Amino acid sequence: MARFLVLNGPNINMLGRRDAGYYGVKTLDEVNDEIRAVADRLGVEVDFFQSNHEGALVDCIQENWGRMDGLIVNGGALTHYGLTLKDALIDCRLPFVEVHLSNPLARDAWRRHSVLSDIARGQIAGFGWRSYTAALEILAALVEEESR
Amino acid sequence: MARFLVLNGPNINMLGRRDAGYYGVKTLDEVNDEIRAVADRLGVEVDFFQSNHEGALVDCIQENWGRMDGLIVNGGALTHYGLTLKDALIDCRLPFVEVHLSNPLARDAWRRHSVLSDIARGQIAGFGWRSYTAALEILAALVEEESR
Amino acid sequence: MARFLVLNGPNINMLGRRDAGYYGVKTLDEVNDEIRAVADRLGVEVDFFQSNHEGALVDCIQENWGRMDGLIVNGGALTHYGLTLKDALIDCRLPFVEVHLSNPLARDAWRRHSVLSDIARGQIAGFGWRSYTAALEILAALVEEESR
Amino acid sequence: MARFLVLNGPNINMLGRRDAGYYGVKTLDEVNDEIRAVADRLGVEVDFFQSNHEGALVDCIQENWGRMDGLIVNGGALTHYGLTLKDALIDCRLPFVEVHLSNPLARDAWRRHSVLSDIARGQIAGFGWRSYTAALEILAALVEEESR
Amino acid sequence: MARFLVLNGPNINMLGRRDAGYYGVKTLDEVNDEIRAVADRLGVEVDFFQSNHEGALVDCIQENWGRMDGLIVNGGALTHYGLTLKDALIDCRLPFVEVHLSNPLARDAWRRHSVLSDIARGQIAGFGWRSYTAALEILAALVEEESR
Amino acid sequence: MARFLVLNGPNINMLGRRDAGYYGVKTLDEVNDEIRAVADRLGVEVDFFQSNHEGALVDCIQENWGRMDGLIVNGGALTHYGLTLKDALIDCRLPFVEVHLSNPLARDAWRRHSVLSDIARGQIAGFGWRSYTAALEILAALVEEESR
Amino acid sequence: MARFLVLNGPNINMLGRRDAGYYGVKTLDEVNDEIRAVADRLGVEVDFFQSNHEGALVDCIQENWGRMDGLIVNGGALTHYGLTLKDALIDCRLPFVEVHLSNPLARDAWRRHSVLSDIARGQIAGFGWRSYTAALEILAALVEEESR
Amino acid sequence: MARFLVLNGPNINMLGRRDAGYYGVKTLDEVNDEIRAVADRLGVEVDFFQSNHEGALVDCIQENWGRMDGLIVNGGALTHYGLTLKDALIDCRLPFVEVHLSNPLARDAWRRHSVLSDIARGQIAGFGWRSYTAALEILAALVEEESR
Amino acid sequence: MARFLVLNGPNINMLGRRDAGYYGVKTLDEVNDEIRAVADRLGVEVDFFQSNHEGALVDCIQENWGRMDGLIVNGGALTHYGLTLKDALIDCRLPFVEVHLSNPLARDAWRRHSVLSDIARGQIAGFGWRSYTAALEILAALVEEESR
Amino acid sequence: MARFLVLNGPNINMLGRRDAGYYGVKTLDEVNDEIRAVADRLGVEVDFFQSNHEGALVDCIQENWGRMDGLIVNGGALTHYGLTLKDALIDCRLPFVEVHLSNPLARDAWRRHSVLSDIARGQIAGFGWRSYTAALEILAALVEEESR
Amino acid sequence: MARFLVLNGPNINMLGRRDAGYYGVKTLDEVNDEIRAVADRLGVEVDFFQSNHEGALVDCIQENWGRMDGLIVNGGALTHYGLTLKDALIDCRLPFVEVHLSNPLARDAWRRHSVLSDIARGQIAGFGWRSYTAALEILAALVEEESR
Amino acid sequence: MARFLVLNGPNINMLGRRDAGYYGVKTLDEVNDEIRAVADRLGVEVDFFQSNHEGALVDCIQENWGRMDGLIVNGGALTHYGLTLKDALIDCRLPFVEVHLSNPLARDAWRRHSVLSDIARGQIAGFGWRSYTAALEILAALVEEESR
Repeated sequence: MARFLVLNGPNINMLGRRDAGYYGVKTLDEVNDEIRAVADRLGVEVDFFQSNHEGALVDCIQENWGRMDGLIVNGGALTHYGLTLKDALIDCRLPFVEVHLSNPLARDAWRRHSVLSDIARGQIAGFGWRSYTAALEILAALVEEESR
Repeated sequence: MARFLVLNGPNINMLGRRDAGYYGVKTLDEVNDEIRAVADRLGVEVDFFQSNHEGALVDCIQENWGRMDGLIVNGGALTHYGLTLKDALIDCRLPFVEVHLSNPLARDAWRRHSVLSDIARGQIAGFGWRSYTAALEILAALVEEESR
Repeated sequence: MARFLVLNGPNINMLGRRDAGYYGVKTLDEVNDEIRAVADRLGVEVDFFQSNHEGALVDCIQENWGRMDGLIVNGGALTHYGLTLKDALIDCRLPFVEVHLSNPLARDAWRRHSVLSDIARGQIAGFGWRSYTAALEILAALVEEESR
Repeated sequence: MARFLVLNGPNINMLGRRDAGYYGVKTLDEVNDEIRAVADRLGVEVDFFQSNHEGALVDCIQENWGRMDGLIVNGGALTHYGLTLKDALIDCRLPFVEVHLSNPLARDAWRRHSVLSDIARGQIAGFGWRSYTAALEILAALVEEESR
Repeated sequence: MARFLVLNGPNINMLGRRDAGYYGVKTLDEVNDEIRAVADRLGVEVDFFQSNHEGALVDCIQENWGRMDGLIVNGGALTHYGLTLKDALIDCRLPFVEVHLSNPLARDAWRRHSVLSDIARGQIAGFGWRSYTAALEILAALVEEESR
Repeated sequence: MARFLVLNGPNINMLGRRDAGYYGVKTLDEVNDEIRAVADRLGVEVDFFQSNHEGALVDCIQENWGRMDGLIVNGGALTHYGLTLKDALIDCRLPFVEVHLSNPLARDAWRRHSVLSDIARGQIAGFGWRSYTAALEILAALVEEESR
Repeated sequence: MARFLVLNGPNINMLGRRDAGYYGVKTLDEVNDEIRAVADRLGVEVDFFQSNHEGALVDCIQENWGRMDGLIVNGGALTHYGLTLKDALIDCRLPFVEVHLSNPLARDAWRRHSVLSDIARGQIAGFGWRSYTAALEILAALVEEESR
Repeated sequence: MARFLVLNGPNINMLGRRDAGYYGVKTLDEVNDEIRAVADRLGVEVDFFQSNHEGALVDCIQENWGRMDGLIVNGGALTHYGLTLKDALIDCRLPFVEVHLSNPLARDAWRRHSVLSDIARGQIAGFGWRSYTAALEILAALVEEESR
Repeated sequence: MARFLVLNGPNINMLGRRDAGYYGVKTLDEVNDEIRAVADRLGVEVDFFQSNHEGALVDCIQENWGRMDGLIVNGGALTHYGLTLKDALIDCRLPFVEVHLSNPLARDAWRRHSVLSDIARGQIAGFGWRSYTAALEILAALVEEESR
Repeated sequence: MARFLVLNGPNINMLGRRDAGYYGVKTLDEVNDEIRAVADRLGVEVDFFQSNHEGALVDCIQENWGRMDGLIVNGGALTHYGLTLKDALIDCRLPFVEVHLSNPLARDAWRRHSVLSDIARGQIAGFGWRSYTAALEILAALVEEESR
Repeated sequence: MARFLVLNGPNINMLGRRDAGYYGVKTLDEVNDEIRAVADRLGVEVDFFQSNHEGALVDCIQENWGRMDGLIVNGGALTHYGLTLKDALIDCRLPFVEVHLSNPLARDAWRRHSVLSDIARGQIAGFGWRSYTAALEILAALVEEESR
Repeated sequence: MARFLVLNGPNINMLGRRDAGYYGVKTLDEVNDEIRAVADRLGVEVDFFQSNHEGALVDCIQENWGRMDGLIVNGGALTHYGLTLKDALIDCRLPFVEVHLSNPLARDAWRRHSVLSDIARGQIAGFGWRSYTAALEILAALVEEESR
């Protein structure tokens, strides 16, 4: 049974209290419930981790090497400068999808550059919690297809 | 019944003969069949238009004003300089999703800048034909939700 | 009798339906009526052409070589990247005035650079349809003066 | 009765002695006569001020707050760095037209950037003294229209 | 009774041992004593937090949401790249003053850009420990004024 | 008895009539009254000078050499290009505090660069008239401390 | 028998009427005659296509896939921004030579950047119609050599 | 007896599992054994610390102030943006050698800029684990020489 | 008898009190005495003007049109941004030598760019008051030579 | 009888031993034989010079002033920074063709900028030794034509 | 027996007379003695060459092709622009270590960019003459290891 | 008796045959005669050296260390990239004046940047051969003054 890790970076734990115009009104737990529902329907396993510490995100990736088949990564503000997170994702050699709740390309200049994009399998951005569930559907299909 | 337009820019009609490492092996007709299957399942209507002429894409958008609820746009190379296409999309005031078969952010420098991103609802890139079907699922859900 | 061509680029045919805050409420036909009224008063002839295709604008300029005395050009979004249009204007060696309904220098960054400005006789921008009529008055005066 | 101020920046008092290829052969008094003739025809009042001192131009704007309906501004070389003049124009909140006798976009690199353009109502450049009279005609029409 | 948080970023705990030419001779405890004395005089409450971990600073801000009225923030080197800290400050929507012991604008090039400045209420920099006490006086006055 | 000069650059004399969202509602005289009240409390002397002319500000600094102990400088728009003012401040070798009513780092791009910052003792910006009074308190304390 | 396509972009159809200092005095038909003469001598077949429409150039390349052995491409002004043309040339995987009548590297700045150069087999520029005939000689020799 | 600290940044704990083409096949423990062997031969003491957390690296440097004579620092990805680590190294005023297993200057663009290089005593890069041992030999010689 | 104007910009009136390492110990009067002595030896007339106001310098140039044969200009800080002064110098069409007491190219970055250099006959910089006297010798020789 | 000089810059003498993928397998002598064969056929004289010293190439150009009718120049790496070579070519005022064996525009970034291109009559690049022979054919034709 | 070439660029022959703070007090002969001593201990052969002429360094590399196993290169100022030297090093395909006596990354901006770094096996910089001996030790070990 | 070296870089030996509009009509020998005449009048000794080889200029500087009191340097095109020449001038620690016959700041962009200016005592540019003689007069005066 395929297993995926949903990795959320800094300040994502504050969903529901952050600016709803960008991030929607659901809390992180409610977003995770949506993801879990899709995982159940697809018959895959999904784990969750969030931290405000870049080091903790890296620790988590290292501890899960060999125990998962892909990642869904919302780097939060680390998207723009987290080269340590990037190196960890390069090292683990697993396919991952870069997701964003809002559309960073339509916001401040400093949100427009992502250090993760060139090593991701692809991006899904701008659709609120649906960015995560669409990512899971696609990632599960790709991993299944490629493991045949 | 909601109606969507799938707009494909230059050279996309050559799918199946272009570099499969980036664009996959399906032809444009086969990609459209996948999209139509999802549309049927969702109970929405979907039309298709492709052209190598920027002006023709703009003509098409203008002719469909008031007759559709959203667009899925793969600008091809126009993604990087088609400001005329951009103005047409701004004028029609409809939500659209920017899609790409490959992940442009992991390719040549000149493919990394999109003139459409800041006016799109969001992006889905890097998943071959699945970029289109995921876009349709999300767009249909958003339009239904917002029209309630 | 002097003869002038009013050349309108992409999306200008949508005047009246575009954002009125920038472009005003008149349709292109109504704008042309204003121009024609001024032309009648001045005793000059004026023709009109609009297209969403850069190639068609170039075709039109080439077909009118030797049959006109000057141009009034609103390049629409081609203002910012239409080097093909620029080359056609250089080749025909006629005086032209660059016009804009809105003031592009007070809008988005990508609207601030014009590839046509350095070869134009001058610019008139920011006055709605009056940009066109002021251009015609000045162009007619200049051409008359220089042909004496 | 509407009242306008024509504000001329440094070195414009030398018209007639400056390079005629760029600025024409009329003196500033002769240019002002042309403007006054148009003002009489339009039934508006027009005042004139010229100085080589940026501070004096700012003093003049401040003293005329509440006593005029719009400005015609040829900043001379201050066009390119006069941020103090810019702040005064922002503060007075009146519509103004930026005019130039020559076409700065077709001259030296340092003349191509204007610090005033983004706050002006529009630009008229490249038509000699006619730049001023065209500006007055348009400004008078706009102010009349907007005050109705 | 108004309550403020003084947030000190990395290496500030080493005050007294760092280069005194830039940072002065007082330890962080001694600086905090000066701040506390002013707080007592003003009748406001003040808490202190310092960490070398960007994640810990973010955790601290999140835990104090709803329990404070403003912040005084010296980001240390995070001033120049800590976008995670920035997002946390944006999310909490509280007024904060950016302070620096030294004047970063007169030091190395890499210290001249602050990622926090554009979201701060203001900056006080270059006055050693007095930067903090002046910040507290102003912040207290502003918060009192705005809560009336 | 220590003596300080408060130097205000162009357009500051229009306080009360400028955009209150940035500059507050007090006039320059009312701001000066606040400063004078603090000066009385501290037992220091304070003089005021404002001009729209960069040259007049420089004249004033030169005339006060040897007759004052420090300056509080709000350069207005000269902050961004007034190198003549900068040279005068370098020459007089007195400590000065750069103040701003608004927070220029959170406004237009052209307001973000200050030519005065690297020679100032420090900056206080963003707190309306309180920027001046905080500057006076700190400057008086520093000058007293250093003259012992 | 090897077959080559000579593809001419916008405004090239105006040869003979364009600035002779850059482009020479021959018309496009006369240039084609020179090319045809060389083709006859070499025993290769050569076809010609010119259009002012980028889309039409792309259509033409797609229709000739599998029916030719190489291209000679003068992109006209599209040389500088025609990424759609570039993608079509990438897709067809045929060797092509980029030619120019004038030497763009010695002209205006905007003519100095070519988006086609990095995918071309080589460039020949600056020799008037001889650029085309030299290109044909070399292309024929290369294709013959590589097909052995 | 001289004492040195070997500081390893994020992802270095994964040596042996990372890309061997860049980082070699030894694990971090095996690399440390090589270093310890050299330390024994030289008669110096050596300690080791690795963390994925920038803050923890800074804590470690602060705790060892006054208890060591120099550092060998491999910042991992922090090399490229870890200004907090840089400030800690500036503050402790000890000589350190910047080491890298691979040659970052021959890899991706983002690996080519080091924020640590200008404050290091020197760099040794590109020699796998030998970078560390060469660094220790040189550092020990320098410290001995300078402490005489 | 040839007549020259020595034009000194802002802060030059403070010579003798400015930083002697850059500007020397002579006052402006003493520098002028040196220049006058050379003028007497050469049999030419020389006038002097200094102001802290850019506008006053421009007024002075305009008033002396037709009454002098050349200028020696030390723009002070206006050297770096005084485009108004530049335009006045362009307009008067007289040869002028740009002089500096210090060598601005070996000082701060902002002193390295001169807006006057490209229209000057030449530069003499870095030789204290001798910069002026050398300029006068050369200017007198050139003017005499060219007037023959 | 027309006479041409083939000037080869540094490292070109190593042809045959350099990377054959870029430069082909012929030695410089073999390339020169190809050129000589074409020269014989055309009835022109051709001389050859190669050096690894920029100064020697310049000496050679100076010694041949007045004794040749044109040059074929492959600057090697000097193409990218050899401004001394450029000045010599400007001074001699002879037409020259810039040639390259490989296509520098499709290689490393530092090979993409040529300091010679803007003064050359044209470029031929990317065709191995045929770049030289095509250059000779064209140069001979141009010189003959222009000397008539 | 392995053989290495120590290549020293311009001005290195002046060691002992150059600024000792950067380059140490030993002459080049004394540095070479240190290198020779290490070579004897390692049982390898070492040759030396220094020149102020870039061309001569390139000649030397070409003459030694096939007669050496590696190089130690101190390019002097050529490090920053010597692309001709770079091409010669690329062509000879031998491993080389880039060495510097001082630490160029901690000096003037123009010394911070090396055109050799990306093709070197690694760098050793900042350790005076020890940079050379450490380079020899490492280069000998690598060459021995790779030749097994 | 003071002794000076006049160092002329590449292509200066061609004076008299280079573009007279920039460089004048005198040959280098004639320029040197003018310099020698001034040297005789001043009672100083002057030597001359010119080369097209950067290395030869550096050799010459090294051979004259300790045997001269100052240099007059016209670097020719090396002015813009000759870092090797720069290092030699830094090493010899003698005062030198940078001279140019023409005014490089009024010519092509690539001639506007000098790598020598920041280490020169001063510049004299734009006065033809008089640039050299003025340089000698000033340099002699400075050296005499400083050697007292």
